[in-house]
Amino acid sequence: MARIRRSEQTREALIEEGIRQLAAYGYHGTGIKQILDAVRVPKGSFYNYFESKEAFVAEIVRSYSEQGLSQLDDYLGSEKGLGPVEKLKAIYRYILEQHADVGQTQRGCLIGSLAAEIGSSSAICQRALIEAFSGWQQRLTALFKAAQDARQVRCDLSADDMATLFWSAWEGSLMRMKMEGSVRAPEHMIELLLDTVFKR
Amino acid sequence: MARIRRSEQTREALIEEGIRQLAAYGYHGTGIKQILDAVRVPKGSFYNYFESKEAFVAEIVRSYSEQGLSQLDDYLGSEKGLGPVEKLKAIYRYILEQHADVGQTQRGCLIGSLAAEIGSSSAICQRALIEAFSGWQQRLTALFKAAQDARQVRCDLSADDMATLFWSAWEGSLMRMKMEGSVRAPEHMIELLLDTVFKR
Repeated sequence: MARIRRSEQTREALIEEGIRQLAAYGYHGTGIKQILDAVRVPKGSFYNYFESKEAFVAEIVRSYSEQGLSQLDDYLGSEKGLGPVEKLKAIYRYILEQHADVGQTQRGCLIGSLAAEIGSSSAICQRALIEAFSGWQQRLTALFKAAQDARQVRCDLSADDMATLFWSAWEGSLMRMKMEGSVRAPEHMIELLLDTVFKR
Repeated sequence: MARIRRSEQTREALIEEGIRQLAAYGYHGTGIKQILDAVRVPKGSFYNYFESKEAFVAEIVRSYSEQGLSQLDDYLGSEKGLGPVEKLKAIYRYILEQHADVGQTQRGCLIGSLAAEIGSSSAICQRALIEAFSGWQQRLTALFKAAQDARQVRCDLSADDMATLFWSAWEGSLMRMKMEGSVRAPEHMIELLLDTVFKR
């Protein structure tokens, strides 16, 4: 039992370190060896945990996405008092505060950055990326639907289209954040969308 | 003279091959050796042409951006008959036709992909990326200003904000294009913005 537990802990440690290094250096810039060294796992035993680098990265994408969605669901479940637009603002303010910490503008969204870097070149990573994207798209669509029902946003666009535009504009503005080394662009984008573009 | 000309030709060939390989494999996935091999330039002579990999990539960004902007300016100069929104649609239809060719959904926008991958980690690449972004932002702002003057789009957003949103949403939708292996997402985004979101 102790052995199984240790093995599971090592697997999780590899995934956490993988999230950290992939966010900082990208797919091609991240070497398995550096991750194993950081977690002090001997090189030969990587394949005890994952079938390949691709399978490892797909697992990292799933884990990163599940952590984000579960934080999001906890927040949405606990904040009953706020309207949907205020919830969206609070969620994105929270994400931007994390990016605004010293040196953190270089860590964009792992899903978007990996999509831009590796696209559909690996089938198993592609499946994990599309699934991660769908999870966010569903949550955003539900929030915009609620905002329409509360008459907080325009109704001539479907909630699904608003979510699509919101996600794309957010990801594009994170590219600018990484390029400019400042959260100014995504901050302005959220305001622009929620205070003007989507306004009734 | 012949020698200078040959040297200039080799430099240009390296940049063209660099654009091709960077678009396909990203910054960290592109090796100088593979580019030199493709252009049949001996490894030792790379530094006759460029000071470093970073300086080379910055030059690639500038060249890619200048080619795109000069094509854009030629088009805008020649198409006097169309209104600004029709021009925007024609420009992006043309770009999407190129991406729709077999295997080309994996080549997104080099500026956006490099911004997402390397961000501000290299100062000289960062300068080249920001300059490239500014060139597009200026052209887009001028087009949206003209569209406002022609009363083709809403006037409660500044032309600059419209250009910012348009660029970010486009880049974000190219991430989805790469991830999904289909031009459906950016195609839909252009329609959504020009036919609904920005409509008067």
